[in-house]
Amino acid sequence: MKAFVMEEIGETGMTEKDRPEPGPADAILEPTKGLICTSDCHTVHGAIGERADLTLGHEIVGTVDAVGDAVEDFEPGDRVVVGAITPDWNSRAAQDGHPSQSNGALGGWKFANVKDGTFAEYVHVNDADGNLAHIPDGVSDHEAAYTTDMMSTGFAAAENADVPVGGTVAVFAQGPVGLMATRGAALQGAGEIIAVETVEKRQELAREYGADRIVDFEEGDPAEQIMDLTDGEGVDAAIEALGADATFQDCIRVTKPGGTVSNVGYHGEGEFRHVPREEWGVGMAEIDIVTDLCPGGRLRMERLLRLLENDRVDPTPMTTHEFAFDEIEEAFEMMDEKADGIIKPLIHFD
Amino acid sequence: MKAFVMEEIGETGMTEKDRPEPGPADAILEPTKGLICTSDCHTVHGAIGERADLTLGHEIVGTVDAVGDAVEDFEPGDRVVVGAITPDWNSRAAQDGHPSQSNGALGGWKFANVKDGTFAEYVHVNDADGNLAHIPDGVSDHEAAYTTDMMSTGFAAAENADVPVGGTVAVFAQGPVGLMATRGAALQGAGEIIAVETVEKRQELAREYGADRIVDFEEGDPAEQIMDLTDGEGVDAAIEALGADATFQDCIRVTKPGGTVSNVGYHGEGEFRHVPREEWGVGMAEIDIVTDLCPGGRLRMERLLRLLENDRVDPTPMTTHEFAFDEIEEAFEMMDEKADGIIKPLIHFD
Amino acid sequence: MKAFVMEEIGETGMTEKDRPEPGPADAILEPTKGLICTSDCHTVHGAIGERADLTLGHEIVGTVDAVGDAVEDFEPGDRVVVGAITPDWNSRAAQDGHPSQSNGALGGWKFANVKDGTFAEYVHVNDADGNLAHIPDGVSDHEAAYTTDMMSTGFAAAENADVPVGGTVAVFAQGPVGLMATRGAALQGAGEIIAVETVEKRQELAREYGADRIVDFEEGDPAEQIMDLTDGEGVDAAIEALGADATFQDCIRVTKPGGTVSNVGYHGEGEFRHVPREEWGVGMAEIDIVTDLCPGGRLRMERLLRLLENDRVDPTPMTTHEFAFDEIEEAFEMMDEKADGIIKPLIHFD
Amino acid sequence: MKAFVMEEIGETGMTEKDRPEPGPADAILEPTKGLICTSDCHTVHGAIGERADLTLGHEIVGTVDAVGDAVEDFEPGDRVVVGAITPDWNSRAAQDGHPSQSNGALGGWKFANVKDGTFAEYVHVNDADGNLAHIPDGVSDHEAAYTTDMMSTGFAAAENADVPVGGTVAVFAQGPVGLMATRGAALQGAGEIIAVETVEKRQELAREYGADRIVDFEEGDPAEQIMDLTDGEGVDAAIEALGADATFQDCIRVTKPGGTVSNVGYHGEGEFRHVPREEWGVGMAEIDIVTDLCPGGRLRMERLLRLLENDRVDPTPMTTHEFAFDEIEEAFEMMDEKADGIIKPLIHFD
Repeated sequence: MKAFVMEEIGETGMTEKDRPEPGPADAILEPTKGLICTSDCHTVHGAIGERADLTLGHEIVGTVDAVGDAVEDFEPGDRVVVGAITPDWNSRAAQDGHPSQSNGALGGWKFANVKDGTFAEYVHVNDADGNLAHIPDGVSDHEAAYTTDMMSTGFAAAENADVPVGGTVAVFAQGPVGLMATRGAALQGAGEIIAVETVEKRQELAREYGADRIVDFEEGDPAEQIMDLTDGEGVDAAIEALGADATFQDCIRVTKPGGTVSNVGYHGEGEFRHVPREEWGVGMAEIDIVTDLCPGGRLRMERLLRLLENDRVDPTPMTTHEFAFDEIEEAFEMMDEKADGIIKPLIHFD
Repeated sequence: MKAFVMEEIGETGMTEKDRPEPGPADAILEPTKGLICTSDCHTVHGAIGERADLTLGHEIVGTVDAVGDAVEDFEPGDRVVVGAITPDWNSRAAQDGHPSQSNGALGGWKFANVKDGTFAEYVHVNDADGNLAHIPDGVSDHEAAYTTDMMSTGFAAAENADVPVGGTVAVFAQGPVGLMATRGAALQGAGEIIAVETVEKRQELAREYGADRIVDFEEGDPAEQIMDLTDGEGVDAAIEALGADATFQDCIRVTKPGGTVSNVGYHGEGEFRHVPREEWGVGMAEIDIVTDLCPGGRLRMERLLRLLENDRVDPTPMTTHEFAFDEIEEAFEMMDEKADGIIKPLIHFD
Repeated sequence: MKAFVMEEIGETGMTEKDRPEPGPADAILEPTKGLICTSDCHTVHGAIGERADLTLGHEIVGTVDAVGDAVEDFEPGDRVVVGAITPDWNSRAAQDGHPSQSNGALGGWKFANVKDGTFAEYVHVNDADGNLAHIPDGVSDHEAAYTTDMMSTGFAAAENADVPVGGTVAVFAQGPVGLMATRGAALQGAGEIIAVETVEKRQELAREYGADRIVDFEEGDPAEQIMDLTDGEGVDAAIEALGADATFQDCIRVTKPGGTVSNVGYHGEGEFRHVPREEWGVGMAEIDIVTDLCPGGRLRMERLLRLLENDRVDPTPMTTHEFAFDEIEEAFEMMDEKADGIIKPLIHFD
Repeated sequence: MKAFVMEEIGETGMTEKDRPEPGPADAILEPTKGLICTSDCHTVHGAIGERADLTLGHEIVGTVDAVGDAVEDFEPGDRVVVGAITPDWNSRAAQDGHPSQSNGALGGWKFANVKDGTFAEYVHVNDADGNLAHIPDGVSDHEAAYTTDMMSTGFAAAENADVPVGGTVAVFAQGPVGLMATRGAALQGAGEIIAVETVEKRQELAREYGADRIVDFEEGDPAEQIMDLTDGEGVDAAIEALGADATFQDCIRVTKPGGTVSNVGYHGEGEFRHVPREEWGVGMAEIDIVTDLCPGGRLRMERLLRLLENDRVDPTPMTTHEFAFDEIEEAFEMMDEKADGIIKPLIHFD
């Protein structure tokens, strides 16, 4: 079968691989639609170290091709989505409420990390009953593909932010995760959402998803702008959806005493993130800093699909470009360079 | 000054009273708009016992007429809202996170209970700095009046229900509190909201506020209908917004193991509420039953006002009738009898 | 192999059964020590309906006899404990934080319910990696047997009670679960623990486990006694560890506004539990009613074993009687009749 | 009256001041016993900026000398304790559950910060009903003095650490706050407590308060020692009770994915605290960093006093030295230099 792989750091290409076989609890999927994630680009640039001919990708929907003997709730032909994160549900971390950390930090992240990813003609899924979800009739494959990571991660940012009903939230960066964090904040009852972004198209989408105010960081220090907008009080919660030291620091600077900094940005570089001591209240201002890795699993996916089914969110406006699977290398390069105002490229496998 | 009072159980009337004076931390308001609550009717019928010439009402907005010496953040002329519940913020219950229970069960409920209510030309407010909130320019007095109780109580029902993002919620009864619970569930990220109601106008409003499905209890057992709609699984959370034994029981019957029953209905009659033992999982199915009294206080009001300011909710369609203060007795009688499809009557003091 | 079974409702006996075989993820244990639970007696009396030759028991420790191919962390000869509840960890309920409710209400309860229990020469355990735990060297089999249910359930009662540090707790009934709830309350930082019990030996143990005051319900209405002891305020939390309507009602009566009623009692009879309407604050006093089924799983067992290893609790004084496996029918009858002041009978399989 | 003051940065001395007068809601106390806190030393060294003749101290118990007209629950002659932190209970931050942050970051910290402290013959207390607590008969003034800060802060460290029953906790530094954090961890049900400390006397006290293992940072990198003690897994929670960048970093290094870092150390120097990026799981390992300022208020003090009354903790072994009020300057200098193995010096005002 064909697979789009990271050949080594810095190199990608289409290659031929053996079709995967399911273990007793596993499934094999035939993808229909997929999305490329910026973290695929990070991986190719070496963020998680060297890999050899590793299949890329972790955001797909598809059709069940085969299942193992122990699988109870899925069968060939089912239209399904699989979360980007596929935890080991019986691990201690999952039993402790942290499935994404199963068997080690970020251990639930398997696709295109410790096993082949999803950009192939056939994809292996561990624990099908725990990690697949049926797609309801009213939800398209295109929409469903956004549950795997963008909606799950972005909404988690807002859930973890512990936003009070009517509270104020600042969301730093309006890439696809940030945009879904903005929508997530609205779905958590935020009273005022301040989106930090400079790209016009992303500003527009942010407004559509619920942002009440836009802070353009090219028009002045964003932390200062946010403090001004909140009469010097700061926000109840700040969401870091970029993964940079500057935005991480700004999050702390704009969060009021008793508030929460919710990080979902992937911090790929540098030895430290810096907590500004004074704005952090010298360690006593009750500003919590919380983090998350994209929640996965059947229940999570089913709940996100229900939001699509009942029109609580439409993620498809984030799809700025579309490609056939054969053209995925081109899509990947555009995503890597953020060319042509790309936000998310949709890959058609069917 | 004129005041609309409960003369004794069963009797109401307009009377003349002395104008109230503020203590050091208090304020006097001159109402502009008010709303009548069904609980005012319960009170007149004797639900909280005998009262003599007690001024009724707890839902108003107004203008500050006078403040005590210790008041820092409000001054005469300010346009403000006061919550229906005005806690003693330094009480042990408030320190414990339960201000509505300050100094005894339901102790934060003072208006038209342990002191004169709000249907008068001047109204006394305890702890002005703690219990008043300024109304933003973009919010009308009419809208703001809904923050005092309907929005605060209805949203609290949804907040307490611990609705997961994308989860399922059933809201029993679509009176004004139930309608705001429905809107609250949408603002908590519910994936599917089932509203139980038989009155057509209320069903319509429920859909506007976010209900995905309507269960008409005149068309069959509502619990059975909900179990059918959820493929026998039940809902993540059920909200009781009526205060009746039957709906309380139904809430337990339709809540899945691990789910939550959130009660805001005022249970005015009977010795017991009945927990159906088997559907409650013989006391081991992890179905939590939680309750609340309308949250009050400056911060709460400010947050609810922010939701109005940023158009997250429009409560004014619930206003089905309008009256001058002089006509309040007529409004009260209509509310008592739920005549003419009344949902909420707005009282103009100005 | 020999197994102690419920032949039918009301009848028990020793019988011969086939030795169980492990599935790929399973293990077979050879028990060394076990404890009889009152719920075994309820089962025999018909509480969960008719059963035919069902092996009884759910509290054992033992040695691994065999494991399936997919088991990674256990091998024959390992000294292990298995929780009374053995969840399906990939189920939706487990993913939702309610593993004891996996695949339906109380669905994690498998032993002596939907499959053979633990009173046999060999015992089948589903999902060995998820449900077994190694016993540390410093912990005896006798001690470890208490982690399976008594410690897990009793401590959960206290954990769910949301006891503030220095708060007040009433624990209704000092059977083995109630005694561990008392110890659990102390381990949650309770400032004052009131134990309700009339049997002298149990009162003594309650004091050893942390009770500061004893309320003997034969000396007057226990709810009144508790209200007197708390100067009419009531307690922050009340724990129901019996499963009776009277104690359930008393729990609500003694819990202050804003407090929590935590139920772990198994309510085996009657159509309803009764919530006293007025003491419940007419549904608005913020008294939460929460419930639980014994938490199981590897992580839970490991944590409870750590408490034994570091001497935070000694459950063995609850063992009032000891029997060989051959004598289990006699032990069972004593437990059923609560004869001779029995609290827990230890069964020696080795 | 006599008062022990910070004359200016670096200078202390006894001076004469006017006796304070109570406002309507306030009280005046006559101290009986007090304790010196290391933060008093920080203040004198300039940590919070310049001050002129500011009375020092925030840990005392005493007798009520006078109360304002609006005070309801206290009267002259009452034996009381006042928390080190005296919040404005009607502030928005208090209404939001963060009273220590009332009216700005750390705003509840008034004594020896924005008003005169407690080392004087008479002490002014704001909001007597909200901030004083009666001392039960069975509790000595000496014991009660520890509730004001050491117990409140140390226990808060453990409460915020979200320690699971049977979980593992590392407590960095065993000064009086760290020792109380160790005791707090035990009172939260920790299964294993690892105390980091090099001073022998403090190690001994740590063991008395519940530490199962001691890590001496002079015998090797403490983070590495803790990882070794936990078989490379790390702890469920780490408590920072020192206020240094190195221990803050170590806390993150030893906390497992999904765990919590709970900071109560006062970070007095440096522009940043440093979060080690990789050990922090590149911002996705679900390691929460939470902070607190000593909780104050009547309810908090009452609960801590109840723990003393029922012998859950004895803080008095931390009192290594005693002085008369006249000798307080000597006590202060010893505390500043940590001379003679001093942990806490008790000041006798009576």
